[in-house]
Amino acid sequence: MPATKKSYPVANVRHFLEPGPIVLLSSRWQDQSNIMTLGWHMVMEFTPSLIGCVISSANHSFELVRNSGECVINLPEAKWVDTVVGIGNCSGTELDKFEHFGLTQGKASKVKAPLIEECHANFECRLHDDTMVDGYNLFIFEVVKAHVAPSPAQPETLHYQGMGQFMLSGKTIDRKRLFKASMLT
Amino acid sequence: MPATKKSYPVANVRHFLEPGPIVLLSSRWQDQSNIMTLGWHMVMEFTPSLIGCVISSANHSFELVRNSGECVINLPEAKWVDTVVGIGNCSGTELDKFEHFGLTQGKASKVKAPLIEECHANFECRLHDDTMVDGYNLFIFEVVKAHVAPSPAQPETLHYQGMGQFMLSGKTIDRKRLFKASMLT
Repeated sequence: MPATKKSYPVANVRHFLEPGPIVLLSSRWQDQSNIMTLGWHMVMEFTPSLIGCVISSANHSFELVRNSGECVINLPEAKWVDTVVGIGNCSGTELDKFEHFGLTQGKASKVKAPLIEECHANFECRLHDDTMVDGYNLFIFEVVKAHVAPSPAQPETLHYQGMGQFMLSGKTIDRKRLFKASMLT
Repeated sequence: MPATKKSYPVANVRHFLEPGPIVLLSSRWQDQSNIMTLGWHMVMEFTPSLIGCVISSANHSFELVRNSGECVINLPEAKWVDTVVGIGNCSGTELDKFEHFGLTQGKASKVKAPLIEECHANFECRLHDDTMVDGYNLFIFEVVKAHVAPSPAQPETLHYQGMGQFMLSGKTIDRKRLFKASMLT
């Protein structure tokens, strides 16, 4: 389990998502919960804090998210790689992924979808726009509440390269001195 | 300059883009060329090879891309970090970025927008869907031609974390053995 999480400004979740990590998307609809592994996401706006996610309609999570209009985007640290792959290689129609992978459901504050407690960060999301779901499986979510573990400050993350390979996040370099102040967000 | 590039399957550009690197987007409209630094992008489909990009309407590139319906997504290696930051902190309305940053315009094969020769890879794109441009500055591009330098096989890339900080790509780990064959794309 990561250290106790703290509330985090929703406008800043891009500090975690813009580098492109693999995330775990959790959802709930009626009595079903599920988790999927997701690599196709991007930041779309600062305020409201919008995140675009492509969720294939072949995934069990697609209907849970569409019906509930909610999800949680959870950020796993790299040490969870085998769980992340396992979650991506089975279907919620066959098993309860929380139970099968021994993950803990946490209570979200603004949505009914469960947090994955073992993850470094949890971003509670409400569906903001579904007009591109039919054409592209594109869900535009608004992050309405964020929870982040205070340490480590720079969690090691997983970045999927395809063909079963993941790039691990490396060191951080600072170029603040080269930025106009107005660009430092 | 990277090693001479080779043609690369457009369905596989996600191997470079899905990990979330900062890219340089080049464009041309009439007699104007420009470059912008872009972090808000995601893979949206395998075939056709679709990439979603959010380009703020405050950027000079916005009009060039919208009017021409084309761009090139260029992947810079991490050693270009100061150029990447410089490009993001000035406007094409003030200067010619190719000239100012000493970058070489290459001729694309399917679009009029220039390639940035110094980059590790160049993905020629045509605007596939602009219905979300007015609402979200979201351009959905189709990659119609890809060029990739054969070495290094794993270029070191930049991943923007906000506040002037970049995460550098780290080592690659392989989990092919945990994947169903059908998931290995």
